[in-house]
Amino acid sequence: MIFDEFSFKSLIRPVVDFPKPGVIFRDITPLFQSPKALRLVMDSFVQRYIDSDFTHVGAMDARGFLIGSIIAYELNKPLVLFRKQGKLPGEVVRHEYALEYGTDVIEIQADAIDAGDRVVVLDDLLATGGTMSATVDLLRRQGAEVPGVACIIELTFLGGRKRLDCPVETLIAYDD
Amino acid sequence: MIFDEFSFKSLIRPVVDFPKPGVIFRDITPLFQSPKALRLVMDSFVQRYIDSDFTHVGAMDARGFLIGSIIAYELNKPLVLFRKQGKLPGEVVRHEYALEYGTDVIEIQADAIDAGDRVVVLDDLLATGGTMSATVDLLRRQGAEVPGVACIIELTFLGGRKRLDCPVETLIAYDD
Repeated sequence: MIFDEFSFKSLIRPVVDFPKPGVIFRDITPLFQSPKALRLVMDSFVQRYIDSDFTHVGAMDARGFLIGSIIAYELNKPLVLFRKQGKLPGEVVRHEYALEYGTDVIEIQADAIDAGDRVVVLDDLLATGGTMSATVDLLRRQGAEVPGVACIIELTFLGGRKRLDCPVETLIAYDD
Repeated sequence: MIFDEFSFKSLIRPVVDFPKPGVIFRDITPLFQSPKALRLVMDSFVQRYIDSDFTHVGAMDARGFLIGSIIAYELNKPLVLFRKQGKLPGEVVRHEYALEYGTDVIEIQADAIDAGDRVVVLDDLLATGGTMSATVDLLRRQGAEVPGVACIIELTFLGGRKRLDCPVETLIAYDD
């Protein structure tokens, strides 16, 4: 059973008008329902970073949790969770960032990251890069470095990669 | 490096008055920040189910995602996500259940489960068992069976296990 980008793409389901009218949502749940595809996709991230000089895996709430936890487990690295405001217990470090309309907040636990840590951040999808860019900013303000950001899907037409001044790895690209 | 329940417990952080006054929240993030502990905890679930007759791994939003995805990856089983209302794209099956005050809703995607499937459901913590019990009910209404429910932490004084008429595995118990 050999996968290439095309056959992985057959496991991404377009959902029209979700979560709001005019949006085509790229649903990765069929990929997680295919054990062979899940293993190949996760192992491609594992092998990408297995020889890299990094100290922590970061995972974005909530679908990024599905990916980050496997990578942390396989590569024996500490896992750091990034969540929306109010979700993480204990003392947190927050970073407020601009959206198209209004602002949003991303948080990590205050003791999760030290200066000099090198964090590879995982999520399911790179769209405009707004939340991912805020996450990178938050990490750098803590004195950490971000040697990589990795997502399964990239919506290239939204230009998220251009907002991230760090190496970005994605597996499946959509041009429109 | 040998772990027992006591030393795993040292990686669970009590957070007083979270998410509301009077509650001691049991924070599992330090366990996910310890690669050796994470591997041993996850592998104890993997070995518990590796010879079991089940077809799917279920994962509860959001901390259950961290656990379920590793178990699905390691045991080469499809992963099914359980989320709160409105989070899952496409056609969903919903189950409304009673809380102490009011009701809540748990959803799965409509094509995720078929009659006869056997789903082991993972979450981080078993408290009153309300959401887990609703999840088991939802699966059974779809014609599926639930050969097991597994959580890292159990708050035994809340009696959640008694609400679940299926095998329940937990690793770390709190009596008060």
